[in-house]
Amino acid sequence: MVQKIILDCDPGHDDAIAILLAAGNPDIELLGITTVAGNQTIEKVTRNALAVCAVAGITVPVARGASVPLVEPQMVAEDIHGETGLDGPYLPPPAFDLDARHAAQFIVDTVMAHEPHTVSIVPVGPFTNIALAMRLEPRIIERVQSVVVMGGAYTRGNATPGAEFNIYVDPEAAEAVFRADWDVTMVGLDLTHQALASAELQDRVRAVGGPISEFALAVWDFVGSTYKRQYEFDHPPIHDACCVAALIDPAVFTTATADVRVELRGEWTRGTTVVNFADTPGMHHSNGSALGQTDFRTHIAMRLDHERFSDLIVDSIARLTAVLT
Amino acid sequence: MVQKIILDCDPGHDDAIAILLAAGNPDIELLGITTVAGNQTIEKVTRNALAVCAVAGITVPVARGASVPLVEPQMVAEDIHGETGLDGPYLPPPAFDLDARHAAQFIVDTVMAHEPHTVSIVPVGPFTNIALAMRLEPRIIERVQSVVVMGGAYTRGNATPGAEFNIYVDPEAAEAVFRADWDVTMVGLDLTHQALASAELQDRVRAVGGPISEFALAVWDFVGSTYKRQYEFDHPPIHDACCVAALIDPAVFTTATADVRVELRGEWTRGTTVVNFADTPGMHHSNGSALGQTDFRTHIAMRLDHERFSDLIVDSIARLTAVLT
Amino acid sequence: MVQKIILDCDPGHDDAIAILLAAGNPDIELLGITTVAGNQTIEKVTRNALAVCAVAGITVPVARGASVPLVEPQMVAEDIHGETGLDGPYLPPPAFDLDARHAAQFIVDTVMAHEPHTVSIVPVGPFTNIALAMRLEPRIIERVQSVVVMGGAYTRGNATPGAEFNIYVDPEAAEAVFRADWDVTMVGLDLTHQALASAELQDRVRAVGGPISEFALAVWDFVGSTYKRQYEFDHPPIHDACCVAALIDPAVFTTATADVRVELRGEWTRGTTVVNFADTPGMHHSNGSALGQTDFRTHIAMRLDHERFSDLIVDSIARLTAVLT
Amino acid sequence: MVQKIILDCDPGHDDAIAILLAAGNPDIELLGITTVAGNQTIEKVTRNALAVCAVAGITVPVARGASVPLVEPQMVAEDIHGETGLDGPYLPPPAFDLDARHAAQFIVDTVMAHEPHTVSIVPVGPFTNIALAMRLEPRIIERVQSVVVMGGAYTRGNATPGAEFNIYVDPEAAEAVFRADWDVTMVGLDLTHQALASAELQDRVRAVGGPISEFALAVWDFVGSTYKRQYEFDHPPIHDACCVAALIDPAVFTTATADVRVELRGEWTRGTTVVNFADTPGMHHSNGSALGQTDFRTHIAMRLDHERFSDLIVDSIARLTAVLT
Repeated sequence: MVQKIILDCDPGHDDAIAILLAAGNPDIELLGITTVAGNQTIEKVTRNALAVCAVAGITVPVARGASVPLVEPQMVAEDIHGETGLDGPYLPPPAFDLDARHAAQFIVDTVMAHEPHTVSIVPVGPFTNIALAMRLEPRIIERVQSVVVMGGAYTRGNATPGAEFNIYVDPEAAEAVFRADWDVTMVGLDLTHQALASAELQDRVRAVGGPISEFALAVWDFVGSTYKRQYEFDHPPIHDACCVAALIDPAVFTTATADVRVELRGEWTRGTTVVNFADTPGMHHSNGSALGQTDFRTHIAMRLDHERFSDLIVDSIARLTAVLT
Repeated sequence: MVQKIILDCDPGHDDAIAILLAAGNPDIELLGITTVAGNQTIEKVTRNALAVCAVAGITVPVARGASVPLVEPQMVAEDIHGETGLDGPYLPPPAFDLDARHAAQFIVDTVMAHEPHTVSIVPVGPFTNIALAMRLEPRIIERVQSVVVMGGAYTRGNATPGAEFNIYVDPEAAEAVFRADWDVTMVGLDLTHQALASAELQDRVRAVGGPISEFALAVWDFVGSTYKRQYEFDHPPIHDACCVAALIDPAVFTTATADVRVELRGEWTRGTTVVNFADTPGMHHSNGSALGQTDFRTHIAMRLDHERFSDLIVDSIARLTAVLT
Repeated sequence: MVQKIILDCDPGHDDAIAILLAAGNPDIELLGITTVAGNQTIEKVTRNALAVCAVAGITVPVARGASVPLVEPQMVAEDIHGETGLDGPYLPPPAFDLDARHAAQFIVDTVMAHEPHTVSIVPVGPFTNIALAMRLEPRIIERVQSVVVMGGAYTRGNATPGAEFNIYVDPEAAEAVFRADWDVTMVGLDLTHQALASAELQDRVRAVGGPISEFALAVWDFVGSTYKRQYEFDHPPIHDACCVAALIDPAVFTTATADVRVELRGEWTRGTTVVNFADTPGMHHSNGSALGQTDFRTHIAMRLDHERFSDLIVDSIARLTAVLT
Repeated sequence: MVQKIILDCDPGHDDAIAILLAAGNPDIELLGITTVAGNQTIEKVTRNALAVCAVAGITVPVARGASVPLVEPQMVAEDIHGETGLDGPYLPPPAFDLDARHAAQFIVDTVMAHEPHTVSIVPVGPFTNIALAMRLEPRIIERVQSVVVMGGAYTRGNATPGAEFNIYVDPEAAEAVFRADWDVTMVGLDLTHQALASAELQDRVRAVGGPISEFALAVWDFVGSTYKRQYEFDHPPIHDACCVAALIDPAVFTTATADVRVELRGEWTRGTTVVNFADTPGMHHSNGSALGQTDFRTHIAMRLDHERFSDLIVDSIARLTAVLT
């Protein structure tokens, strides 16, 4: 069955690959792309979203969203994604105009316009737009099919020792999303650091040829060098595409069920996702009630099948390339 | 060179093994054992410390310490260590009287009575006594040689998703110890979960024979069953003995340098050790100054050499057994 | 000069009086009423806003807003305002339909449709709608003339020892409003507890006669009894009307300038407005830089001129009554 | 009946007056003076305590205590008390040696050496020594008669908008003292700001004549000028003496019963005493259970009888002067 999704993103290198995967896979119907300040400012990430569409011949509504988090001042990841937010590849001018609505309103309208339980939301930047949409129209909470987020970690963060960047940028929005009564899958760093653009994957994409292949390789070339410098990774992770992949093929990673709380108050831990696995060795603690974490319902992505994941990436680039030419 | 140490503990199963290791190894001079409420109440852990001495023929000063943490109410780990705090082996009556002093005063007196930089403190329970000693006599801070603590974690905790038990029980004391200007090595769960009482190690201890060997096996039998039940471990970790082992042979584990802060304020993260490695892949974060963690001087135990560790355990049990008979 | 305002409220007894004052005073142009969950649920306070309009012959747009705070679960003040949120007076059915837009969108549209610096926002419930509007359209921040909020306290709260109800219900929204770069006046409990519906004021309103007078007296009768019971007040405070009064006549209260921070992280102080007066006796602290509160720009309402305030209340009820008949 | 007390202080100008009052009043038996870093470093406040004794011919044990708070780094109040901690009067050299024990040990020994419920502790600096004593010997908690602390506030602080200096310097120690199961009276700023060294009081002390009178006047002259500059007070408050006064004559101020919590975690409110009066108008909040403050047992000083207080001050200076000459 084709899965309808709204991709909420801040392109962003791995966001760009997530857009290609969503637009190029036949099991996904991409209802729209919404943008949020994160990897770079809202102006830059919105322009980048349109540029990715222009590169790959994608024509879906694109709606600009929040320029600042709910409470925190703005923060960007220029060290990783560069001055434009998508440094590396050539970024063509937009091929079409933005949707006139705010991203949050676009999400509300789109979810309410479709049948219940048919639309999934895929937030792969800070969750600001999702939190705004939930507050503008609380009925979307029971109407969406699922929410598959890129964010968080259950061992180590990348913005601080405990916090992952998307959560760290807007912890209040993240907590609102995790607390709401809908089906949430958390695709955190523990999973996405397995989703590397390996040499083999890059070779397979190179073999496709054409401008989209060139674009993807330029994306990985740039972000590969910043990840090498900042984190000593040999290959760059393709974080955001993992969420889309899971909606195409749930077998792309295993999951465990947990209670997830976003630490909002700590002095050193703000934005940490506190992930309590009910019945998992080493995670279970002896006086659970004292901790108070009793909401064991979030699906946590655990182990990636890198081959399935790579196949999906290569396949979608090939399909988009075929259409383009 | 022989290393003089004070072992501050809350026996506790792995504490008992740490006592045997400290008393049985010729490179350690055990100046005294101090006790602190933790795994069980102060009465129980103090009685257990004396019982371990009685079992193994150890005659060193034993001083009773804090019955409650600096600020928090008391908490014990009965699920792991049982009703006595050392369930499993037979616990003989004391063979000698307690030192009349409070543990904190004993630590102060002992450190000040020895030459500067000759005594190391080894806290393997909550750090309450150490914090009290530092406040009673701040000059011990520059006088001790090193402080090798069992506590904390840089990925996952065991009391809560982020917090290890010893830190969770008295986070304020732990923060005081980590902030003081002395040489601290943190032996956390990431290390001690490698220090399992494996079948092979247990076989080697069984081969020693005699009452101390029987005692150690009974210790592991009991705590092995609680760790199996609570955390699904196949063999129980011998957390506390790792600290003593490192003072005998620094090569027993590798270390990395990091800034360690104890989260005191979080809603879900209290007692978490926030460990920031300056130059380690995946741990380094892009805007360090924003986080404010700039005190990169704590040694973090990383990878255990299980064979060296096992050799030390077996050797000390054999030596104590030889003396006893 | 006539002051254009949007009144964002959760009627609520004192909110009802604020509506009467805004609609009945010739120096105020009431552009619209927006509602927010607070004193009661969003359904109840919205119905009450329409009922107040029906009672007093007011015809302005009424737009329904947020049903839950940004992050916190919902909380209501049934102990004070009763089951309907406006217990006491007869509440007639609505005389007109709600505006179709969400309150936040209504605020954005209205502010952007008027000339810069001509519209003031008057939030007298939790600040959720205002925070949402700021995030949907950040340009409203520099476009509004002023924001006059009922909320907070600089000595004691009424929801907790330190926190006032409107701030306590949605502290994150409050912090966002206080941090934004616009002109904010904080009308807190220290001021509004001077704005009592005294026997003399009630007599003057009684003398006006007619249904609006009866309505106001019934409002004070009910909330007078709950304030007597809950707080031992002899007369009920008319909190929310103070904000409207200040926009009619700035001399209705004195102000001092201060830095205001909403405590979001405390264990016992969440929602407390931490008000630091730069140069006021007894409020100035010796190491200001350590505290970090350096944003001395919020106007804090200090001392009420109760006679001027009473005159405005009586006058507006008289004018509305004259129009009605 | 004569009340035995230990005065734990950080002289400090008002501390000096408290010492005079305790030593000069026949209903107080001053068992000892213990010192703690606060208004100035431990070296300075200890020297000042001995100097006050020398000035007034007081011969009681003086024991030096904590130089740093339990967890926080040290902080002093040089702006108020000057470089020596007691700027203004001539400070003579000590007339006798310090007690050899740490203040905390002195407190433990003294309380345990007297009959149960006969000794009161009067902490008028940061509560570090008291917290240390409680942890060294928990049995003092049920053995002391009462604890009368100078610290905290229920409306506004003096170190930050919400926090009073003694609590702000060592919030963890303060929370430990307020939580312990003994009889505590909190004499906070709301009370002590009524205890001014008025012109009339100063005239009466001047009339006594002699060196102790001169000393007291020099104390008020200096601290009067810093309070004028820092807080715009016309006369300086004699904070610490209020606690001693209450043990001589409970009618010197009225009290109300409340639950007191020290905020340890807030971003802007650390060290604030959150004082919840169960049944007092304007302080009672509607959903007490949500707040969780249910420990209504601390006596809060409310209204001072300034005349009784002044009489006690004048009387003790006169008696000490009479003995001296």
